[in-house]
Amino acid sequence: MTQDPSADTPAFQDAYPDDLSHCYGCGRLNDHGLKLKSRWDGDETVAVFQPAPYHIAVPGFVYGGLIASLVDCHGTASAAAAACRREGRPLGSDPPARFVTASLHVDYRHPTPLGVPLEIRGRIEEITDRKVIVSETVTAAGTVCATGRVVAVRLPPSMTPPA
Amino acid sequence: MTQDPSADTPAFQDAYPDDLSHCYGCGRLNDHGLKLKSRWDGDETVAVFQPAPYHIAVPGFVYGGLIASLVDCHGTASAAAAACRREGRPLGSDPPARFVTASLHVDYRHPTPLGVPLEIRGRIEEITDRKVIVSETVTAAGTVCATGRVVAVRLPPSMTPPA
Repeated sequence: MTQDPSADTPAFQDAYPDDLSHCYGCGRLNDHGLKLKSRWDGDETVAVFQPAPYHIAVPGFVYGGLIASLVDCHGTASAAAAACRREGRPLGSDPPARFVTASLHVDYRHPTPLGVPLEIRGRIEEITDRKVIVSETVTAAGTVCATGRVVAVRLPPSMTPPA
Repeated sequence: MTQDPSADTPAFQDAYPDDLSHCYGCGRLNDHGLKLKSRWDGDETVAVFQPAPYHIAVPGFVYGGLIASLVDCHGTASAAAAACRREGRPLGSDPPARFVTASLHVDYRHPTPLGVPLEIRGRIEEITDRKVIVSETVTAAGTVCATGRVVAVRLPPSMTPPA
């Protein structure tokens, strides 16, 4: 079974301020959502997610939109963590580092079995002040079922909640 | 307000057989899911979806994973409909035409406001016996907030429910 290597340490998403913690995919304050938790594992980032039985595509397999959602939220969280690491400051420090997705690409390489935990693993491909590119794998029962790429950019002022 | 031009006609997803109707994104038999409905509008395909308040990214905006899910399911449904149209047969006829996503790409062009219906519109870019490429737009309140591209392929035997 896939193990999260640091499930007892705070996740990136736990460091977001409250007003940036409502995301359906990863917000700790969204009671309807997926509450994805991403953490460092050396120079890579990792999250483990157990799909619910209703996250189905056809019987026995996970629907692609869930996989895209996991890649998306793990990508923006990895971007925030990588930006803070580059700046030499903790993720929860001010100003909040929060990224949104400019583009998302997912290649579905094998049908993703439903019923086992998924490991989403990210690698920082490129990082500048403005954007972070994260490449990802989604692995189920030892098989890489999907690969993805997120181009994440800083949360624009138009989306930033008022102070 | 965005109007679905043919909301009184059966949707592509209504023609899927029961055992292919469980998808979280578009299955009519998934009580937890989004139940996306896609239809022809001339040579384009269209679906209208009203996000729930909890489909949030940051306050006021839709989370990207939902948009990716809508592009994904509208793309595979459009592929199935286009394949049947090309074969000169109704979508519900045997053998069932059902496609899965080989690759998904979404560009998030503007923040997507939460609280208004989203119109997902598809255009068939390429169609062969084996695959269909669908380009899509996601429009909110008159603004194209996202564009997407789905490469859809026939449901492989490994994912096909036993007869």
